[in-house]
Amino acid sequence: MTLEAIKYHAGSLQILDQLLLPHKSHYVDIRCVEDGWKAIKTMQVRGAPAIAIVGCLSFAVELKKKKFETIQELTEFSNKSLNYLVTARPTAVNMSKSAKMLSALLSSSKCDDVEELKQGIIDHIEEMLDKDIQDNKDLSNYAAEHIKSTCNKSNDGYTILTHCNTGSLATAGYGTALGVVRSVHKEGLLDHVYCTETRPYNQGARLTAYELVHDELPSTLIADSMVAVLMKTRKISAVVVGADRVAVNGDVANKIGTYQIAVLAKHHNVPFYVAAPVTCHDDIIQDGNDITIEERPADELTMVSGVRVAAKGINCWNPAFDVTPAKLITGGIATELGVFAADEVKQLKNQVKNGSKS
Amino acid sequence: MTLEAIKYHAGSLQILDQLLLPHKSHYVDIRCVEDGWKAIKTMQVRGAPAIAIVGCLSFAVELKKKKFETIQELTEFSNKSLNYLVTARPTAVNMSKSAKMLSALLSSSKCDDVEELKQGIIDHIEEMLDKDIQDNKDLSNYAAEHIKSTCNKSNDGYTILTHCNTGSLATAGYGTALGVVRSVHKEGLLDHVYCTETRPYNQGARLTAYELVHDELPSTLIADSMVAVLMKTRKISAVVVGADRVAVNGDVANKIGTYQIAVLAKHHNVPFYVAAPVTCHDDIIQDGNDITIEERPADELTMVSGVRVAAKGINCWNPAFDVTPAKLITGGIATELGVFAADEVKQLKNQVKNGSKS
Repeated sequence: MTLEAIKYHAGSLQILDQLLLPHKSHYVDIRCVEDGWKAIKTMQVRGAPAIAIVGCLSFAVELKKKKFETIQELTEFSNKSLNYLVTARPTAVNMSKSAKMLSALLSSSKCDDVEELKQGIIDHIEEMLDKDIQDNKDLSNYAAEHIKSTCNKSNDGYTILTHCNTGSLATAGYGTALGVVRSVHKEGLLDHVYCTETRPYNQGARLTAYELVHDELPSTLIADSMVAVLMKTRKISAVVVGADRVAVNGDVANKIGTYQIAVLAKHHNVPFYVAAPVTCHDDIIQDGNDITIEERPADELTMVSGVRVAAKGINCWNPAFDVTPAKLITGGIATELGVFAADEVKQLKNQVKNGSKS
Repeated sequence: MTLEAIKYHAGSLQILDQLLLPHKSHYVDIRCVEDGWKAIKTMQVRGAPAIAIVGCLSFAVELKKKKFETIQELTEFSNKSLNYLVTARPTAVNMSKSAKMLSALLSSSKCDDVEELKQGIIDHIEEMLDKDIQDNKDLSNYAAEHIKSTCNKSNDGYTILTHCNTGSLATAGYGTALGVVRSVHKEGLLDHVYCTETRPYNQGARLTAYELVHDELPSTLIADSMVAVLMKTRKISAVVVGADRVAVNGDVANKIGTYQIAVLAKHHNVPFYVAAPVTCHDDIIQDGNDITIEERPADELTMVSGVRVAAKGINCWNPAFDVTPAKLITGGIATELGVFAADEVKQLKNQVKNGSKS
C-alpha cells in the first residue's frame, strides 16, 4: 500500500509530521494558512512539490470556511495568504509559481459571483493534487526509458544512487527521483538503490530509507561522505536527484550535497539525472547564481533528535541548498514532457504553452 | 593549556574516553594489553598515531607488572600481545609497524638478562611518546612553510579545510593535519579553518570542533555534504588531512570521505595535502588497492548517541576508510622530514635509514 502523507477532503487537511519519522507516524491538522506556513517552515512537510501542495491546500481549507462580501475582499485575502506562504521556504520555486498562477486566475476571472469564484479556486487547487501524481508517473516512466536506453547495467539490472527524499513524502505521491527508482523497479530492472543520509536533516536516512523499506526495494543507506568510494568500487548506473528550482539555463538548486555528487559523478563517468516536473522550472531566473539559497540554524547541524553531537561553542555554516551547473547534469532533466538535456530546458516554457512534447 | 588525552607514568596509563566527548571528560584506566585492545576496538581512542601509542603503552604497563623466568617466555608474551593489538584496527599501519619494530628489537637483542631486556623495551616505548610529539611539530612546520610558499591567501591569511580529527586527540600530542593548522595559526597567518562533521562517527563535530574551541582558533563546522559548495563559494587555500596508511606509491588510506574531498579539491583547484609522519608510511604495501579497508557495524550509521536516526530495517554500508590515489594529492605529503610529492614518498624509506632529508 502506498504511503499517504497528505490526507485531504474538502475543508479538511492532515499531513504526516515528517519531523517525527521514522519513529512515529503522527498526522497534524492543518486548519488555515498560518498552520500551513508553520508546517512548511518547521519542515513537518518538505520537498518542493509537497510544499506547494500543502501550502495551497491550507489556503483552500481556510478559503472554504471563510465568507467574503465582495470579490475585492476575496482577492485581497487570497493574495495576502499566497504571498505569505511563499516566504516559508524561499528556495523551492513550486509554491511561488502556484501562488502566481492562483493570483492570475483570480485577477483574470470574468466571474462576478464571489461564492462561485471562491469554489473555482478551491476546485483548481484540488485538481493540482491529482495532476501532480500523474505528472510524477509520466516523468518517472520517461526517465526509466532514458536510463534503459543509455546507462550501463549489470546482469541484475540498474543500480541507482539518490540523495535526500523525493518520494511520496516529498510530493503529492509516487515521487520524482524516487519515482524514477520505482518505475525502474516496476519493470523488474532495479538491481539496487543507494540513498545518502543527507545531513544535516537526515531526509535520506529518515524518509527515503523509510519509503524504501516500506516498498521492499533492494536498497542500502550510505553516509554523504561515501559517495565517491561507492562510485569507485561498486557499479553505479546513474545518479537521480530531485530539484527545488531549475533556472532557465538548466542550472539546478537542490538539497545541499547535490552539487558535490554531480562533481563526483562527472569524475567517475556516472550519468547524472535531475527529476524535475515543470512546476519546478523557473521561467524568470536565468541562471543558478541568482537563486536565493536559504541558510538554516546551526542547531540543525549540532543537534540530532534533541541530542547534542557537536562540541559546544563551535561556529556552524548551514546552507540548505546548493546549485548544480547545467553542464554537470550529464544524464538530463526528466520532466512529465520527456527527458531534456539541461541546456534545452529553456524550450519547456513554449512547449507547455503549446501543449506539445519534443 | 594543551589538552592531555594520554596520561602515562611508568606502570600507569589513563586515556580520555573519546566516545564520551564532547559531553564528558572522563579518563579510562588501561591496565593491560586486553584493556588497550578494547579501547582501540571500541574507539575510546582513535587516530592512527594515537592507536599505536596507546597500544604500545598498554603493553608496557602489563610488561612492567609481569615477571618472566626466561627470555623466551618474555619474547613469546611480547609477540603474542603485539600481534593481538594489531588486530584491533587493521587499516592503521602505525600499530603494525610499532609491533614489528618491538619484535625485531627483542629478537635481535644481545642482552641475556631478562629484567634488563624487559626494561629496555619499556624505555623504548616511552621514548616513542616524546618522539611522536616532536615529529608532529616538525611535520607541521614544514607543511606550514610549504603552504606559505605555494597556496593562495586572503588579506587575513590562509583558509584551511580539514577532515576527521588529527589533533591532540588522535596523536601523542599537537596533531598532524590539525598540527599544520596550529603552526599556520602560530605564525598569525590563519584566516579560518573549516572542519567537516565526519560522519558516521562525527570525529570532526565532536573532537576537532572540541579542540578548535579549546584553542580559540577562528573556525566553522560544516556537514560532509557542504565541501563542494564551500570550495565554490568561499576561498579555500588548502585542504589538509591525516593518514592511516601511506602505500609505497603514495596512495593514502584515511578516514572515509577523504577520497571525495580530494576529487572535489582537484575540481576546484584547491591544493590537497596529507600530513603523515613516517610511522604512517607502509614499506611493504605497494599500492592503495592492496590496503585492507575495515567495514564497521551498521548501527554507527543508524544510531547517534544512542538515538535511532535511520528508518528501521534499512540495510547499511559502512566502510571506515577510503583510498586517495597519489595523483589527487596535489599539495604534497608532509612528514617530519619535509614535504614530498606523493610519487616521491618511496624515497622516504632510504632517507630514514640514512637519517638525511631532501
